[in-house]
Amino acid sequence: MLDSFRELADNYQVIFFDAYGVLKNFEGVMDGVLDVLADLKREGKELYVVTNDASRSPKKMSLTYVHPEHGEIFAEDRIISSGMLARDFLRAKVRAKKVGYLGKPDSAYYIQTAGLTAIPINECDYDTDIGAIALLDDEGFNWESDINRAINILRRKTIPVVVANADTVYPVHQNDVAIAVGGIADLMESALSRRFVRFGKPDAYMFSYSFSRASAITPGVRRKDILMVGDTLETDIRGGNKFGIDTVLVLTGNTALASYPFQIDVSGVIPDYVCESITT
Amino acid sequence: MLDSFRELADNYQVIFFDAYGVLKNFEGVMDGVLDVLADLKREGKELYVVTNDASRSPKKMSLTYVHPEHGEIFAEDRIISSGMLARDFLRAKVRAKKVGYLGKPDSAYYIQTAGLTAIPINECDYDTDIGAIALLDDEGFNWESDINRAINILRRKTIPVVVANADTVYPVHQNDVAIAVGGIADLMESALSRRFVRFGKPDAYMFSYSFSRASAITPGVRRKDILMVGDTLETDIRGGNKFGIDTVLVLTGNTALASYPFQIDVSGVIPDYVCESITT
Amino acid sequence: MLDSFRELADNYQVIFFDAYGVLKNFEGVMDGVLDVLADLKREGKELYVVTNDASRSPKKMSLTYVHPEHGEIFAEDRIISSGMLARDFLRAKVRAKKVGYLGKPDSAYYIQTAGLTAIPINECDYDTDIGAIALLDDEGFNWESDINRAINILRRKTIPVVVANADTVYPVHQNDVAIAVGGIADLMESALSRRFVRFGKPDAYMFSYSFSRASAITPGVRRKDILMVGDTLETDIRGGNKFGIDTVLVLTGNTALASYPFQIDVSGVIPDYVCESITT
Amino acid sequence: MLDSFRELADNYQVIFFDAYGVLKNFEGVMDGVLDVLADLKREGKELYVVTNDASRSPKKMSLTYVHPEHGEIFAEDRIISSGMLARDFLRAKVRAKKVGYLGKPDSAYYIQTAGLTAIPINECDYDTDIGAIALLDDEGFNWESDINRAINILRRKTIPVVVANADTVYPVHQNDVAIAVGGIADLMESALSRRFVRFGKPDAYMFSYSFSRASAITPGVRRKDILMVGDTLETDIRGGNKFGIDTVLVLTGNTALASYPFQIDVSGVIPDYVCESITT
Repeated sequence: MLDSFRELADNYQVIFFDAYGVLKNFEGVMDGVLDVLADLKREGKELYVVTNDASRSPKKMSLTYVHPEHGEIFAEDRIISSGMLARDFLRAKVRAKKVGYLGKPDSAYYIQTAGLTAIPINECDYDTDIGAIALLDDEGFNWESDINRAINILRRKTIPVVVANADTVYPVHQNDVAIAVGGIADLMESALSRRFVRFGKPDAYMFSYSFSRASAITPGVRRKDILMVGDTLETDIRGGNKFGIDTVLVLTGNTALASYPFQIDVSGVIPDYVCESITT
Repeated sequence: MLDSFRELADNYQVIFFDAYGVLKNFEGVMDGVLDVLADLKREGKELYVVTNDASRSPKKMSLTYVHPEHGEIFAEDRIISSGMLARDFLRAKVRAKKVGYLGKPDSAYYIQTAGLTAIPINECDYDTDIGAIALLDDEGFNWESDINRAINILRRKTIPVVVANADTVYPVHQNDVAIAVGGIADLMESALSRRFVRFGKPDAYMFSYSFSRASAITPGVRRKDILMVGDTLETDIRGGNKFGIDTVLVLTGNTALASYPFQIDVSGVIPDYVCESITT
Repeated sequence: MLDSFRELADNYQVIFFDAYGVLKNFEGVMDGVLDVLADLKREGKELYVVTNDASRSPKKMSLTYVHPEHGEIFAEDRIISSGMLARDFLRAKVRAKKVGYLGKPDSAYYIQTAGLTAIPINECDYDTDIGAIALLDDEGFNWESDINRAINILRRKTIPVVVANADTVYPVHQNDVAIAVGGIADLMESALSRRFVRFGKPDAYMFSYSFSRASAITPGVRRKDILMVGDTLETDIRGGNKFGIDTVLVLTGNTALASYPFQIDVSGVIPDYVCESITT
Repeated sequence: MLDSFRELADNYQVIFFDAYGVLKNFEGVMDGVLDVLADLKREGKELYVVTNDASRSPKKMSLTYVHPEHGEIFAEDRIISSGMLARDFLRAKVRAKKVGYLGKPDSAYYIQTAGLTAIPINECDYDTDIGAIALLDDEGFNWESDINRAINILRRKTIPVVVANADTVYPVHQNDVAIAVGGIADLMESALSRRFVRFGKPDAYMFSYSFSRASAITPGVRRKDILMVGDTLETDIRGGNKFGIDTVLVLTGNTALASYPFQIDVSGVIPDYVCESITT
């Protein structure tokens, strides 16, 4: 009754994979995934990761997916993070050279590669000449003091705030979740009564950005040549549908076998296909 | 053009004061306030504090307002905190004897006086037999670890969550604010997709509770004998209006002289009177 | 496993009933209900209807519940509608004598009995000296022209808006719903970027108002003597719990036998009891 | 202090204009606008309309801007409506051939040109085999009966809903506004507890779609060659900024000369330039 991912993949030239819940989980890359990816590459498929994770550079993410025999699965330019859209925004729109940020030092990559200087928010004060604040990751800072500090800086300065990951929670263990940086953004927006600039799925712009990348690498590729693979109806599937590419829901992450028909009904977000996993 | 608070007060038997922005600010009790309150008491007015502050017991709050000559202004039973409504809820509705909480140890007063055992959330695990979680204060815990811990406990247990203070931000200095426990509640509700039980202004129930207290102390008091004094349109004035008592906006806190007509227009929350301060 | 309503009722002196989904449905009063109510009255129970319906006067609602032998079940003063709270607000806070309204002519009862003149919004223009707008019912006016008219009046006048029924949808047939006046209020609030004054369950003030009525009729009644009976977790049970009275969920309306444990889990709103119906 | 639009325009090869509040108002095309547009065209600028109006076809919109001497300003392919993105979605994702819609018959253009059959919602019943519902325009249907009908159809069918215009209100006269179809979408989403698929500014996807069109007509065009001209911070400027093109706010529509610095401060949405109008 469920579709076979391997048969489905035959019909597409380009495949976009969400990372968490599709390729890996809290224990690391899931069993069999690297073999499937290596096979697909050998068959000539163009594979991409399309992720809302802005906590590290694409280079570092790439190192997660190395096949013991066949080596690196995703070259750096095949990993598309919402952090890159945030970086483009900072590059185009920030007037001062410094950007304050919330996140681990690794996540500052997306500020630095825009040619800007990244300053942890706890090193900013009201006189620091920052041109924007970037919310990059939920870890690496003191929530109480740094969220309050960021709010008070924003009450004094008219500067943009970018959120490099639109998710509000993410899984951290079998049954546990943690507040993601999108949730922290909600809290700050509510305290300030203003809206920030968010990047990431389900925003269709994340998909048009990925499509541009794929078009640059594979000239002439059409939307109907692309399949989006995701475990979350509200981000992966909603966004892929909105952008007009085919979508497949896999049941290895946020959406369970027992409840997926109910969740589709309730949300009205309808994937073109449903597969148990990418290894089936 | 503004009303005189002293003349206004003549028309009421009972006066409800918001605390922060009306009687005190970040530096302590405002100049002249204790004298005005002592005068009003001598004239026979019944004075109450009606506050969303659930960080300390009414007894401790009472100690804030001691006139150097005339002594205590507000006896303990004249201080009405949203924490008391939360306490009544816990007393009536909690089945297990233990309640997990977020807040400083002082705020646990509202759990303990309900006859329950208060346990800081960082001492709770998934097996702790707690009957509710109470959000009492924004300080006294590690935001990152304890908010995430509370969320994961609530994903496993069907227990009520009470929020003893509905405010999302509060002033901490001349120009600075901090996220209040109501903001933390918003963040947790969003992560869990459920709504908690909130107490405090502008909820009219906070005013009906205060009215019951005033009726017990002064039998026969009518709503039209009561004046609510507040600095915040969205809580003090909105709630007082909804409960049907007269309201006066003072300009010593959240609402400034320059912008109050604009803020009234925009909000549609219309105080019966506007005074510069309670000392004018 | 479910509780017996008849046995449960023995423990309470006063019973608050929600109307729709508890006593009646789209076909009228449910089978057996009038007999149960008549029995309870004969046993000396004090029975009240506590409803968010502000479309007609308590007198008219009273006529819905007439036992063929024992006559009227609920005297007019035993029917408590959120419209009455809206009326009290209008009486206390409206400065001009005229009030514009959205709703059927019957619903204007709640304006007229406040001593004010009710004017359908389509007879108001920008010069009409109205002191408030009341949203009373979802029927009786042209949605497109009258909602837009009300919004434009409110862009010009700083007057309060009261919503006499906080519900956003209500059932109209076995499987059909309709947008209620609370939903229309949401739409208008969003267009105007301001919040109106809403009355009705789950607001605990609706329960404190009902408790005052019960105390006036039965002096000395305590909260623990009262049982709230409702079919909706988010209004009847949430509000009754917040006010601190015992609550029983019945499965004859919005909440179904198959899904109630799931809905309690998801909402965190926990009734003290669950009964199949009031006739069991 | 304000920038001159004519001088500014010199720096860009491609100009995207919002329509309402920039080129026209409730009285029609604003004085001097057609002359400015004709001049810009003669100078070789590529001009586009980028609008959230999905009430009529681009061809019909094109007829609004005809210079008495120089003829048509915007060829049909220079008019980009959010309705086109909705059309692409319908074409890619709708499985049945029929689509129910809310809007005037003219707006059905966006369904018909997707190769689908458009059926007014009042001609749909629960058995009609529609593959989606499209919200196209706020006029052309009975709000009360047709909104309720659409909601009840969606309670029975798992089909997508597209909203071809994300705006919640729009101006209809000097000082009057009307609820737009995005506001009706909010109301329906709230009643159904699900989210629809919305198209239009400030969604950056609307800008990437427009950029693709411009790239097809003018190969090699870069983002920095494009200027977005709009009167609304929250749609035109927010979206243009997010997509990374330069933005100019004009003061002929939603944003007034007296309040624009305040609105920029409050929103944190910062245009690259501010001009009084496109004729200055």
